[in-house]
Amino acid sequence: MLIREMTKKESLDFLAHPRLGRLACASGGQPYITPMFFAHANNYLYSFSTVGQKLEWMRHNPLVCVEADEIESPQKWCCVIVSGRYEELPEMPEFEHERQLAWSLLQRRPMWWEPGFVATNLHGKERELKPVYFRVHVGQVSGRCATLEDQMKSIVK
Amino acid sequence: MLIREMTKKESLDFLAHPRLGRLACASGGQPYITPMFFAHANNYLYSFSTVGQKLEWMRHNPLVCVEADEIESPQKWCCVIVSGRYEELPEMPEFEHERQLAWSLLQRRPMWWEPGFVATNLHGKERELKPVYFRVHVGQVSGRCATLEDQMKSIVK
Repeated sequence: MLIREMTKKESLDFLAHPRLGRLACASGGQPYITPMFFAHANNYLYSFSTVGQKLEWMRHNPLVCVEADEIESPQKWCCVIVSGRYEELPEMPEFEHERQLAWSLLQRRPMWWEPGFVATNLHGKERELKPVYFRVHVGQVSGRCATLEDQMKSIVK
Repeated sequence: MLIREMTKKESLDFLAHPRLGRLACASGGQPYITPMFFAHANNYLYSFSTVGQKLEWMRHNPLVCVEADEIESPQKWCCVIVSGRYEELPEMPEFEHERQLAWSLLQRRPMWWEPGFVATNLHGKERELKPVYFRVHVGQVSGRCATLEDQMKSIVK
């Protein structure tokens, strides 16, 4: 097996269609990871969440990291990592266009990992269901792909 | 679908056998996620890595987060999140027992996502292959599970 670095274009292409990834934010040096469903457009990753620790942390420190991978086998996988900046899309006229864009991108993939929109029972009480739309401005992006050595040789030849 | 919080025991049981998860570390408020293969024992998550950004960051700031999930379907999934502290297991006599434990736990799962041990070609040069063993002391742990509402009702009845 060989692991090679993906180009920026390959990495962004990997993010092109809506997918499940993981988002990390940090507070006081402590990172926190949650699964996140997102879609990419115009150098932004669009997503949504309900109010909670993650949103509170990102409002205070907008530096985030998003990771997405596809693992076909131990010898064949891709992993893309984005360092970016959180930007909330509040329910205000000036953000309406971006909120609509977020919704239209995300709804392309039918009901997949959408805890933000379902009844949640935590600590014996129902959680508030109001979604908060946000986007992550893509700063640095890097990606790695693993392929079998034989495949790599046939590509190089 | 209903999402419920897992007990601490359920969350730790979920981590009991070696699995692939994601590790986040942070430097100067910027989080960074990478996939990580790990095994749990005695309130520690054992893993290894090659020298690189992740290790440098964790040596400087040992606060980390580990996330692991299993997604069977949009309506049936589990996700466990650990906040913990990085502890390196250097090649010294006093760490030999813990290094052996790490190795014996990790090798239970045959060759799975082991980029630390394979030839890697980055920026046109081969990466150093020396593995660094480490463990994460499990501090806070939380988990959530999604089930279909009908399943939940039958459990409650």
